[in-house]
Amino acid sequence: MVSKNQVKYIRQLEQKKFRQRERAFVAEGPKVVGDLITAGFEVLQAFAVKEWIEENRLTAVTTTQDVTAEELKRLSFLQHPQQVLSVFRIPADLLPIEKPSLPRLILALDGIQDPGNLGTIIRVADWFGISQLVCSPDTADAWSPKVVQATMGSIARVCIQYTDLKEFFNKTQLPICGTVLDGDDIYSSELPDEAIIVMGNEGNGISAAVRQSVDKPLLIPRFQQGAESLNVAIATAITCAEFRRRHHAHVSSMPTW
Amino acid sequence: MVSKNQVKYIRQLEQKKFRQRERAFVAEGPKVVGDLITAGFEVLQAFAVKEWIEENRLTAVTTTQDVTAEELKRLSFLQHPQQVLSVFRIPADLLPIEKPSLPRLILALDGIQDPGNLGTIIRVADWFGISQLVCSPDTADAWSPKVVQATMGSIARVCIQYTDLKEFFNKTQLPICGTVLDGDDIYSSELPDEAIIVMGNEGNGISAAVRQSVDKPLLIPRFQQGAESLNVAIATAITCAEFRRRHHAHVSSMPTW
Repeated sequence: MVSKNQVKYIRQLEQKKFRQRERAFVAEGPKVVGDLITAGFEVLQAFAVKEWIEENRLTAVTTTQDVTAEELKRLSFLQHPQQVLSVFRIPADLLPIEKPSLPRLILALDGIQDPGNLGTIIRVADWFGISQLVCSPDTADAWSPKVVQATMGSIARVCIQYTDLKEFFNKTQLPICGTVLDGDDIYSSELPDEAIIVMGNEGNGISAAVRQSVDKPLLIPRFQQGAESLNVAIATAITCAEFRRRHHAHVSSMPTW
Repeated sequence: MVSKNQVKYIRQLEQKKFRQRERAFVAEGPKVVGDLITAGFEVLQAFAVKEWIEENRLTAVTTTQDVTAEELKRLSFLQHPQQVLSVFRIPADLLPIEKPSLPRLILALDGIQDPGNLGTIIRVADWFGISQLVCSPDTADAWSPKVVQATMGSIARVCIQYTDLKEFFNKTQLPICGTVLDGDDIYSSELPDEAIIVMGNEGNGISAAVRQSVDKPLLIPRFQQGAESLNVAIATAITCAEFRRRHHAHVSSMPTW
């Protein structure tokens, strides 16, 4: 039996202010919840249908509450609820787990607004073995239900922090690369193996203040007159792919796990 | 003054069946409408606020109906209507305008379901100078208001047709490349300059029937264990970027316009 207060608590976690106060976020579905549990995220509450609990005897925490499909629907943010909904602790700023076989790339987001874009970018970072994401304070909140679901579980494997980007840059020695309209063709530019890659806001690109810190302005060349822009998640993917491809081209094999 | 019947007609154009019967689709906003007019799409109806009409004396067709912001809101599919809404003729299957300076790439979509993904893919095709998009009949309809808006005007520069993919393949001599789970690493594979690039459904990838036609199975390598998939629009962008990069690397300059 799910109480009214439980439903109210979960629904309030849609609000950033409430998430920050509670240091908690919601994740749903076997894939996303499973990835977060595997990564060691702290489970605060869990609601699941019998089917999921049966299949996850080992991972299902003892506090998992057995609910009906109807009850899950009342809790869920999804149109089609998926067996399980968990509340996890938002991790404190942690050091990312370095992948010794890969050069260090950090993704810095300067004012990304759309939750779908942010979720897709986190998924891209995960794919390309980028374990650290640094977001400006005005970037959309990664712990909102929409973003968490859009990451398809990748949020479990990428360390995310919100901080002033310029302050962050001052603390690292890595070269700062950013895609800007007046940048150099990424395909004919020398790229460092290790770098911070900055991506800007959907409409306005990288802010003037952050632009000053960019050591290496880059541009994805377009092949069609009239095409004016690429979606920011697409541009992020093409840029990260090119950095990894360059490194990949001069090492003998893919990372081993 | 916008009549009830006009509102009803526009709203009905949200349905694929109605669009097909009328051979008409809706586009909104100065950028998308402007790109379609520039590309020579036939305007069937147009509604615009005075501001847009003033600024577009040359392109505003004589039939453009002057509406108030309130009236535009009643017609619009957007949360924030943008000055102009037009109904255009869906073009009959046209031959794409070949870009003589670029090798021919054709994008084939096998069952893409999400309108946002389809719109983003059309935008990617435009950016990389791919002027022909061939869609399986079960792919989402490119002329739906959601897709048209998601293309940000790129739909004006990409020739789109719906047909059986295998039949289409039989009529061309181009090698057929496709991203599949058991493909060869795209970065260490030889890629032809000219090709058909097939992208599959969000959940299931390329269908078994179409898979048989793929001459060159490709794979975007992942750099992180646990990451299970890339969004299909992201995978399309990375693949198209790599094809164009290879060609770009062995020609002296970018295409001239």
